[in-house]
Amino acid sequence: MKVIKTTDKNFTKEFQEILNRGKMDISNVENIVKEIINEVKNEGNKALFRHISKFDKWTPTKNEDLEISKSEMKKAYDNLDEELKKALHLAYNRIKAYHEKQLPKSWLDFEENGSILGQKVTPVNRAGVYVPGGKAFYPSSLLMNVIPAIVAGVREIIVTTPVIENKPNELLLAALYICGAPKTFKVGGASAIAALSYGTESIPKVDVITGPGNIFVATAKKLVYGDVNIDMIAGPSEIGIIADNSAKPDYVAIDLLSQAEHDEMASSILITDSEMLAIKTLEKIKKFLKELERREIAQKSIEERGAIIITQNIEEAINFMNEIAPEHLEILTKNPFELLPYIQNAGAIFLGEYTPEPIGDYIAGPNHTLPTGGTAKFYSPLNVEIFMKKSSIISFSKKAMEEMGKSCAILAKTEGLTAHQKSVLQRFK
Amino acid sequence: MKVIKTTDKNFTKEFQEILNRGKMDISNVENIVKEIINEVKNEGNKALFRHISKFDKWTPTKNEDLEISKSEMKKAYDNLDEELKKALHLAYNRIKAYHEKQLPKSWLDFEENGSILGQKVTPVNRAGVYVPGGKAFYPSSLLMNVIPAIVAGVREIIVTTPVIENKPNELLLAALYICGAPKTFKVGGASAIAALSYGTESIPKVDVITGPGNIFVATAKKLVYGDVNIDMIAGPSEIGIIADNSAKPDYVAIDLLSQAEHDEMASSILITDSEMLAIKTLEKIKKFLKELERREIAQKSIEERGAIIITQNIEEAINFMNEIAPEHLEILTKNPFELLPYIQNAGAIFLGEYTPEPIGDYIAGPNHTLPTGGTAKFYSPLNVEIFMKKSSIISFSKKAMEEMGKSCAILAKTEGLTAHQKSVLQRFK
Repeated sequence: MKVIKTTDKNFTKEFQEILNRGKMDISNVENIVKEIINEVKNEGNKALFRHISKFDKWTPTKNEDLEISKSEMKKAYDNLDEELKKALHLAYNRIKAYHEKQLPKSWLDFEENGSILGQKVTPVNRAGVYVPGGKAFYPSSLLMNVIPAIVAGVREIIVTTPVIENKPNELLLAALYICGAPKTFKVGGASAIAALSYGTESIPKVDVITGPGNIFVATAKKLVYGDVNIDMIAGPSEIGIIADNSAKPDYVAIDLLSQAEHDEMASSILITDSEMLAIKTLEKIKKFLKELERREIAQKSIEERGAIIITQNIEEAINFMNEIAPEHLEILTKNPFELLPYIQNAGAIFLGEYTPEPIGDYIAGPNHTLPTGGTAKFYSPLNVEIFMKKSSIISFSKKAMEEMGKSCAILAKTEGLTAHQKSVLQRFK
Repeated sequence: MKVIKTTDKNFTKEFQEILNRGKMDISNVENIVKEIINEVKNEGNKALFRHISKFDKWTPTKNEDLEISKSEMKKAYDNLDEELKKALHLAYNRIKAYHEKQLPKSWLDFEENGSILGQKVTPVNRAGVYVPGGKAFYPSSLLMNVIPAIVAGVREIIVTTPVIENKPNELLLAALYICGAPKTFKVGGASAIAALSYGTESIPKVDVITGPGNIFVATAKKLVYGDVNIDMIAGPSEIGIIADNSAKPDYVAIDLLSQAEHDEMASSILITDSEMLAIKTLEKIKKFLKELERREIAQKSIEERGAIIITQNIEEAINFMNEIAPEHLEILTKNPFELLPYIQNAGAIFLGEYTPEPIGDYIAGPNHTLPTGGTAKFYSPLNVEIFMKKSSIISFSKKAMEEMGKSCAILAKTEGLTAHQKSVLQRFK
């Protein structure tokens, strides 16, 4: 694990490496993904059958094979361990409650001249949710993507997920049931993104696609962007921790590792003004690493992409963290709320020692789909608004037209758009 | 101009053509644009000099040549015709007032167990605004893009625009001055988008790029998406009008033409349940066409891409219009507000006979940068939120952790993420 001081000679160079952590080179897979998309566009389900056969170790033969039935979902739910069921329902309810607070409202505003301006908010008609299903199953991902769409009022939600050997994961099935058993198709990868974007005999074309995935999924999402809307292009997971000498090294160490266990490409970065904390955290990381099931992944990640930055004070720590713009940011200082005004860039901010990052992954309520690789500088967490869109409302009265029409006509004329000018002046005839 | 009835045999086929109106094929320019972007990435200003020399009929020789000075802007403003100045200020103030109403607020929400959840809203640090400047100058475009960024609280706004023969348009200069004289660079096309996305010696890297442009600009925006955020990928302009027999054919005709004059590729579509209105509108279009300065463009657009659809009733008109999802929608019926609940998809909705579409282009207040080609099904008008991003806030108390930590740990374990589980359980030790 890299330990650097901001006063080190080579700090700028080392820090630049951290800033570049999220660069994803899609040029190697772009052509393959383009071909997959074209095949699905041109051949529909037939292409899906072929791709499933190639990647998922089973071969659908008819259209109905692609869909997971509601009865399967119910059965898995009925068989679910009670404690797990309770946990899933708790997560569902808290995620729902949080996202309901995000709901934007339509509004109208009235002027004395009789004109009315406003904004109408409408859910999209159909949303597609991608759930990864290759190496691991993340039912929490399903909840985090489907619930905001439900809260937004989307009429139809379509889920797609790869199902290896045609054996759906029981927990995912149960989670689907809890989410109201949306139409779910056993298709993964770039094929799924293409099917959702352009439609096939079985899978309806959607308006927006959300959900994480590997580089093929991310590339497909980028390529279809514009034909449908997408949430964001997600890279490897990451955590940044700002801590002072009041932080417990135990907590700092295990929280860094909990991000590192996700992925060898994950980044776990502590920035602290306490050299003592840095030293103790390193010791604890060594100790905890031995106890982890996903030790190999975590170790590789923390060694190659983990870092501890020692600053001269907490202000400096905040400034560097704002440049990093981490997906998850923990603040473990004496009074974390005091620092909140200065945090510019972070997907989600976890305050205080009883708020470890995994609380936000599952149960707190806010979305765990967050901008990575520094994109928190301009992207927001997944939220209900990706499933909604706005229309401006304009109603001018005769009086408003009399007051402002002439100015409008002048501007139109100046831009050389005389039919625009005429359209306004026609109202004065 | 195509006139079709929904009861016609070939209606579905004809309607499908209207639905496909927005398809933009970028495959022809994609490689050229990729090369331009790479040149700017690798060579910075040097590449910009070369591209300007090639496309804009002048050759910058030093870095300072790229920037428009504030004194030029002020001079143009001081020399501006008084009526025009008044019109620009009116537009500025109304656009600002409308966008201020859109501002989202940060919020916190408290639970009895002591936990705090919320959402922090922060402006992006730096925004880039692209203003086209080849064939026409649209100072209104500048206002519509820069003002939301100002309202959002963006620290630094960077404008780029191509300046043919190194002679900036006086009106654009004046409009820049009214917008607070942001840093403005004389660079256009894909080069400008690349410079804003990755930075050069002169042009700082931004977080988000907005503004319309030709297919090179649109393609560049799509390619850099993810490295920066973008507003949307805009296609040719369009208007849809829903009208009944109460509508004045004069108004309908000139409003259709005011869209047609923009671009040969523009689409102007009337949907009405009144065959009489359809006939009279056609007559008026013929009459007005003769009087237009941009007659050739308008005529080609209206002939090749204009359409009148005659429905059996207004409900049917609304349903088809929702499928079209037009950029601009005028409702010219007896009581237009009654129809508002049923409008699902439209960039901006213009209600009643005193609200011709050009009012929204210049003076009403809502943004004129709107989703085209049917993308109003999932995109919103340009608004302050593209210049802001959100961070989730989570603060769990000891009590909240005691209530929910165990459920969280179970879910983490079930997903195989034992460091996540351990991170939570560590808080119980």
